[in-house]
Amino acid sequence: MNPLTTRRMETKLDQLQQRIDFIKAIDALKEVQRKTCLFSESRYENSAEHSWAVATFALTLADYAPSGTEINRVIHMLLLHDIVEVDAGDTLCYDEEGSKDKAQREQAAADRLFGMLPTKTAQHFRTLWDEFEAEETAEAKFANALDRMIPVLHNLDTGGKAWIENSVTFDQVIAKNQKIGRSSPALWNYLLPRIQRAHQDGWLL
Amino acid sequence: MNPLTTRRMETKLDQLQQRIDFIKAIDALKEVQRKTCLFSESRYENSAEHSWAVATFALTLADYAPSGTEINRVIHMLLLHDIVEVDAGDTLCYDEEGSKDKAQREQAAADRLFGMLPTKTAQHFRTLWDEFEAEETAEAKFANALDRMIPVLHNLDTGGKAWIENSVTFDQVIAKNQKIGRSSPALWNYLLPRIQRAHQDGWLL
Repeated sequence: MNPLTTRRMETKLDQLQQRIDFIKAIDALKEVQRKTCLFSESRYENSAEHSWAVATFALTLADYAPSGTEINRVIHMLLLHDIVEVDAGDTLCYDEEGSKDKAQREQAAADRLFGMLPTKTAQHFRTLWDEFEAEETAEAKFANALDRMIPVLHNLDTGGKAWIENSVTFDQVIAKNQKIGRSSPALWNYLLPRIQRAHQDGWLL
Repeated sequence: MNPLTTRRMETKLDQLQQRIDFIKAIDALKEVQRKTCLFSESRYENSAEHSWAVATFALTLADYAPSGTEINRVIHMLLLHDIVEVDAGDTLCYDEEGSKDKAQREQAAADRLFGMLPTKTAQHFRTLWDEFEAEETAEAKFANALDRMIPVLHNLDTGGKAWIENSVTFDQVIAKNQKIGRSSPALWNYLLPRIQRAHQDGWLL
């Protein structure tokens, strides 16, 4: 085998090792606990299984995305959206104190984790993650809408278990989640009366 | 609003409720324990977080799929491939006794779970799941290759923790995993010498 072919093969093998090292590193997402209970209420969920649920939710609710939305880019974003929590931890969206330095912590995590990958894939994944965070494209808006909607469904179904434990109020739930309606009015029309009912029933203050 | 419009809106709302009920039902996948340890060795993983890992692995290893493979169909299959375990449980691929009625148990689970969805989506998801199980298309072969590869990586990295606890032998590992090479020679060329080394080192008998 000539040296050029050998070097090409080595590079290909190095790149495979980089990808496998990335997968090993983000395995730690299975140990990041979120402030949302399973529907069964048996325990809090972790960010890895949440990422599966919300990506599968996107596949299941593809018809509720605005016309022209590329659902596969939504799914890619949702698979990657939380991996920065491996370094930065999960910050409850209602936690104003924790949210102050969240962006900075997550940017550093993104630099480290995506930086483990071969350049082209690193850039591709970072662009997807930045797009999700900026929430400007139709795909990023829909991905964020689903990411907000899932914990609302969990709370509505469990008598607000995680909301109550974290002292989350009706006004906060409305303020943080009404953006869902800008991406998908049908989804917000489903949620809003149920959130209002929880408030009227007295368990969401 | 005329009655036809009202009926159409109701149908759309019913369909949304069906989709949400499906997502609630498959949330139980977070409580199905697999026989693979986390890379950190802190505990066994569950099938929901595994599904996230292997779908993200597909996105990360897209370049290693045979030319022409539709990577998004691979990802869709991997998001859905294990949901039947909600009813049927996880069966270790080396468990010959448990594998006898596995297909029957999983078919019944697929009937129930996909049957919760509106007809068109139910058919779409069932077709993807059947395609994964049949392992005939390039997409299904690559999805299955990644699904086999991930537990091998976990075992190689943890001194064969789950293999040893489940009395899995070198011959079994080779027999069950060599199919990876039919879909992606590069991935099998990476794994094979590492599995052989584990055998030579004496911890994979």
